[in-house]
Amino acid sequence: MPRNVKGTRDIVGQDAILRKKIVNTLARVFEKYGFQPFYTPVLESAEVLRTKVSNEILGLMYEFKDKAGRSIGLRYDLTIGLARYAASTQLSFPFKRYQIERAWRYESPQAGRYREFWQADIDILGVESAKADAECLACISEALKAIGLKKFTIRINSRKLLDEIAEEVGIGKEKIKVYQILDKLDKIGKKGVEQFIKEAIGKSKAEKFLRAIFGKSKRTTEKIEELKKYARMYGIKNVKLDLTLARGLAYYTGLIFEIEAGTRQSIAGGGRYDDLIEKLGGRKTAATGISIGIDRVAEILKQDRMEKTITQFYVIPISKEQESYSFRVLKQLRDKGINSDISLSSRSVGKNVDYANKLGAPFVVFIGKEEVKSGKVKLRDMKSGKEKLVSLSNLLKS
Amino acid sequence: MPRNVKGTRDIVGQDAILRKKIVNTLARVFEKYGFQPFYTPVLESAEVLRTKVSNEILGLMYEFKDKAGRSIGLRYDLTIGLARYAASTQLSFPFKRYQIERAWRYESPQAGRYREFWQADIDILGVESAKADAECLACISEALKAIGLKKFTIRINSRKLLDEIAEEVGIGKEKIKVYQILDKLDKIGKKGVEQFIKEAIGKSKAEKFLRAIFGKSKRTTEKIEELKKYARMYGIKNVKLDLTLARGLAYYTGLIFEIEAGTRQSIAGGGRYDDLIEKLGGRKTAATGISIGIDRVAEILKQDRMEKTITQFYVIPISKEQESYSFRVLKQLRDKGINSDISLSSRSVGKNVDYANKLGAPFVVFIGKEEVKSGKVKLRDMKSGKEKLVSLSNLLKS
Repeated sequence: MPRNVKGTRDIVGQDAILRKKIVNTLARVFEKYGFQPFYTPVLESAEVLRTKVSNEILGLMYEFKDKAGRSIGLRYDLTIGLARYAASTQLSFPFKRYQIERAWRYESPQAGRYREFWQADIDILGVESAKADAECLACISEALKAIGLKKFTIRINSRKLLDEIAEEVGIGKEKIKVYQILDKLDKIGKKGVEQFIKEAIGKSKAEKFLRAIFGKSKRTTEKIEELKKYARMYGIKNVKLDLTLARGLAYYTGLIFEIEAGTRQSIAGGGRYDDLIEKLGGRKTAATGISIGIDRVAEILKQDRMEKTITQFYVIPISKEQESYSFRVLKQLRDKGINSDISLSSRSVGKNVDYANKLGAPFVVFIGKEEVKSGKVKLRDMKSGKEKLVSLSNLLKS
Repeated sequence: MPRNVKGTRDIVGQDAILRKKIVNTLARVFEKYGFQPFYTPVLESAEVLRTKVSNEILGLMYEFKDKAGRSIGLRYDLTIGLARYAASTQLSFPFKRYQIERAWRYESPQAGRYREFWQADIDILGVESAKADAECLACISEALKAIGLKKFTIRINSRKLLDEIAEEVGIGKEKIKVYQILDKLDKIGKKGVEQFIKEAIGKSKAEKFLRAIFGKSKRTTEKIEELKKYARMYGIKNVKLDLTLARGLAYYTGLIFEIEAGTRQSIAGGGRYDDLIEKLGGRKTAATGISIGIDRVAEILKQDRMEKTITQFYVIPISKEQESYSFRVLKQLRDKGINSDISLSSRSVGKNVDYANKLGAPFVVFIGKEEVKSGKVKLRDMKSGKEKLVSLSNLLKS
């Protein structure tokens, strides 16, 4: 029996309906905030893919040679394609785009984590002000609410603040390593973080660093204050500074964000990457963005979702003689914009009703000899089981 | 300067807006016809990918080894994933699905042909009757009209009819090769087809075959007649039998379809593939489907499209003091569901107006000291250039 490739999956039935609803709802909100649709290729040159990447992601990259011997790979996120595009194009700023598509990483598959995964990204290029970051957070907040995620918190931090602390403590080149350990807090816990940082930079520096990170502190930066100010203007209330937040520090240059669902699961993250476009050969360009992990969001929403149905009316001709009339009824339903379907098999009425039930269609339309003669149809409400004869014009009004 | 991989491209600006509109419109019509959303992975095992494929496609496949040494590849169409899924799942029939996504083939890039291309597929599994084929044609016809393609013709043929002719003429094992030459008619012309078929099976058989294919004929099959009958019920008028149509005969088993735009360009194709699911290890399953080539359709629609815009209102605070009030106005516009944006830079009013113009925003909202005081905003109609003071409540009504 053929299988799908490990770490990939088919999204079907209720899952596919939910997926499509999430994608469409996010797109609608993103556009309301002035982000424009944008599509970059799945394939990028290995040279481009290696620019942004941390060693960790580098080890997870799908890379191969094409038939002409070019080193290419599958994108591991949606930012790298945007940055490549921006580096090679004369843009008019601010450039605001969104992209809702897949990316690939050779991870160990786990519940809710796939090698082929979906992301929804918004980015603003060309704006240094934290207004842009606040705009992204406002947009993502509304987008998450729109898809039905009511509870989430936004944690923020700043690369600059971490660098300041590292400098005070006297941590030099090892700081990236220290941040990477800190970033594993969710996985290895506070104890694990302490242990690994002590091993990396020695007990004394480690203790000072950890006290600064985990202790109460009134540290801040100009950008953090600016962000908070604009967040207030946007009416975002759940923004919290968290010095332990250390994600993506291989490329984030300033503010960093992480959004957690009520369950403490990370569902979105982002930050400033003011260096990336220059690294790819473009001009120095201020850039910020946030990415939602769609698979995890879908997993959360799945738990309390309503069953959704595509097809509203399922038309069943009782016998072959009513086919022609039934197709006319079907056409009129569809012409009214109502999702409708017709029995395509010559199976029994009972089996057709079972099928309509599986589809979740709320109404079945029976068409027999009498119905054709009288110009009516028999309508069954699948929930109550009640049937009534209705005229075609009344059916179309329902 | 970093480039995108040959044969791939970024879809941005007006092209991206058009692309999204095409995808959404197709999905809406597909659902109206009872097709359900469905997503298969981009990555499939090489074993699966090789099942369906003709030698031609085999030579164009992106295939490579993953980090564990598995032979995998990028899908070359959307049917193979569906068939793999159907072969390994107990489905309730008819199974109707649609999928609008990308696939990959290592083709020579040409105008409108990419190595990374987009397809929109609908398929019906589990129905032997040509009702299913007619349903697909009816759905695709409405979908093409809905995206703005008014003129197209549907050519049909049948694998069985070609086989009948081949048998009459006495063509044996060479018939697949003969069909493949015939399939190149658009590229190499009638003369070319004649010449290559003569070379393949000799002058005498070739002449008989070509006379049967190109001459006037009343040949038909039961399935073709059934299809025509249901096509009439669906109100599809532009269906034409064409014996020269010989696409995809490495896997199509019965009816085949091709849809051409007014310009004689093929924009969609499909047919019966009643063997494929069994070949993949599943039960024998009747199957039919049609695939639209989105890139070509987009190319055609681009020629007479209207400029589209995402952002309706662009809000410009005259100075920093009006920022807070401006964000409130922005929020109210967005809360009404109106796509709106705000100046994020501290650049001059003139530059902001230029930018709004580039965005194609039909309205600019200026907010200065006077506006804040009076609770009004200055609204500029970007087309006429006229400005007027309007109250916030009137702005939200516009």
